[in-house]
Amino acid sequence: MEKKAVVSLGHQALGYTTMEQRDAVKVTATALADLVEAGYQLTITHSNGPQISMIHKAMTELRRIYIDYTPAPMCVCSAMSQGYVGYDIQNSLRAELLGRGISKTVSTILTQVTVDPYDEAFYEPTKIIGRYMSKEDAEIELKKGNYVKEIPGKGFRRAVAAPKPIKIVEIDAIRALSDVGQVVIACGGGGIPVIEQNHILKGASAVIEKDSIAGKLAGELKADRLIILTSVPCVYKGFGTDQEESVRELTVAEAKAYIGEKQFGEGNMLPKIEAAIAYLEACPEGKVLITSLECVNAAVKGKAGTLIHS
Amino acid sequence: MEKKAVVSLGHQALGYTTMEQRDAVKVTATALADLVEAGYQLTITHSNGPQISMIHKAMTELRRIYIDYTPAPMCVCSAMSQGYVGYDIQNSLRAELLGRGISKTVSTILTQVTVDPYDEAFYEPTKIIGRYMSKEDAEIELKKGNYVKEIPGKGFRRAVAAPKPIKIVEIDAIRALSDVGQVVIACGGGGIPVIEQNHILKGASAVIEKDSIAGKLAGELKADRLIILTSVPCVYKGFGTDQEESVRELTVAEAKAYIGEKQFGEGNMLPKIEAAIAYLEACPEGKVLITSLECVNAAVKGKAGTLIHS
Repeated sequence: MEKKAVVSLGHQALGYTTMEQRDAVKVTATALADLVEAGYQLTITHSNGPQISMIHKAMTELRRIYIDYTPAPMCVCSAMSQGYVGYDIQNSLRAELLGRGISKTVSTILTQVTVDPYDEAFYEPTKIIGRYMSKEDAEIELKKGNYVKEIPGKGFRRAVAAPKPIKIVEIDAIRALSDVGQVVIACGGGGIPVIEQNHILKGASAVIEKDSIAGKLAGELKADRLIILTSVPCVYKGFGTDQEESVRELTVAEAKAYIGEKQFGEGNMLPKIEAAIAYLEACPEGKVLITSLECVNAAVKGKAGTLIHS
Repeated sequence: MEKKAVVSLGHQALGYTTMEQRDAVKVTATALADLVEAGYQLTITHSNGPQISMIHKAMTELRRIYIDYTPAPMCVCSAMSQGYVGYDIQNSLRAELLGRGISKTVSTILTQVTVDPYDEAFYEPTKIIGRYMSKEDAEIELKKGNYVKEIPGKGFRRAVAAPKPIKIVEIDAIRALSDVGQVVIACGGGGIPVIEQNHILKGASAVIEKDSIAGKLAGELKADRLIILTSVPCVYKGFGTDQEESVRELTVAEAKAYIGEKQFGEGNMLPKIEAAIAYLEACPEGKVLITSLECVNAAVKGKAGTLIHS
């Protein structure tokens, strides 16, 4: 019986343009295929920042030129980005597995995730998205009811809320495929954030952190492992400071203590550690591995990365 | 035990823009929910002509304005369109079902379909796609190696091949969800057409007829019914002629005889009848229903539509 792993892929696994993505996913696919060969059933989540931004820009330009088209809200762009990224991942992973003589269905489930409209994240949006804008464009965004942040010396960018995920709407579909040992790509870009009102799911102006949803997904699937792939080979205390020190093993209690000491970068390692804790509190028997794409093969053998456990 | 039905949705089920689609899918969802209430597990396919065309235009404009972006080939636009359409269908059907007190997972599986590179369809592309072009733009397309057709008095449009579907790549994922009674949206737009070479799937410059893939899918899933929803309430002999006559029931043998008599419109009813025959030859116990969204509720009760059987 295979062990279940949820894998979270960051930006570096995908690149920024259609061509970069096609090349990047080939490297990503070898790391993922290593995990399959190591005996894991995989459920894969991924970020979609550059992808949703590209699609949103394209849909905005479309409307500027062809006035008959109606706007594409962020939730629709997010759905398109799940199709776009899922296609490239499922394709390259399938090819990589077949090249190793492994025949396994790899598919993508379009996923929505509910958020709480009263989540305090909505009161102060922190997630920066989209291109730099002039002051004039920023004022237009403000009039539309959107949030804007000034990046000193560079201009303005939109900011959206990053609320906590409440419910993965299509979880039963993801579980059904995971239970029969298939590879599933789901919750792309953190999932399409939606607010539920009288059975109806409405797209929310928000982004769900991909690590946060990965932790939630691993908990829901009762996964044996949560594997977070990022740009560094392991977790560091005091990252980027004189006291920088790599951490190869952490308990939940230690992780919490380090959070109290502000040892982890806020928009960076902190959400990964928080996702690890959320998952380990739901599945105390689980293990979390934080490492890079390059080191994951060594890391599953205990020779690299950071292992977090109860 | 629910009976399995594969449902094929045409253009009228989806509309042409983001807003039209959001409204159209609500009407579509009531028809689909009627089928669920009538005791069917549904696997839903849909067309994506206007959607892929919209996305392709948007990605083309994006590149014209932001030169750093690389082109989005049709296969990538098709993947995006599956995300876009799937999102709206799964959302509105879920809401419609919950409104009727039915809790059922509805999800979308991103689907690729292999085609044969030597399919004779590639020698004479017949499927008209995209906007009308001037003669100058048409010549640019020809230089890129694309096919172009002149529509007398209106201009030029691109034409791509409509090859036969060979293999639904993600069929095991679709089957796993269908087998546990969930609602699945799959093979959107006929599926992303791909050519398999040494384990690698490459996007093909082609469109797979949605009815053709619906017939294939129904055969693969050994569905009890194939339900083709279109703009007319039933099949007609001599449609649009003085001898027009509605047909309420057809055997495969009769259908073949009518095809010989050229009773069905080529780009229209003919592919539906051919899909019906392909499915019934794979599943002789099956039944095919051809009707409109408005009549489907009456049609499953035998009071409307056209029933085709062995």
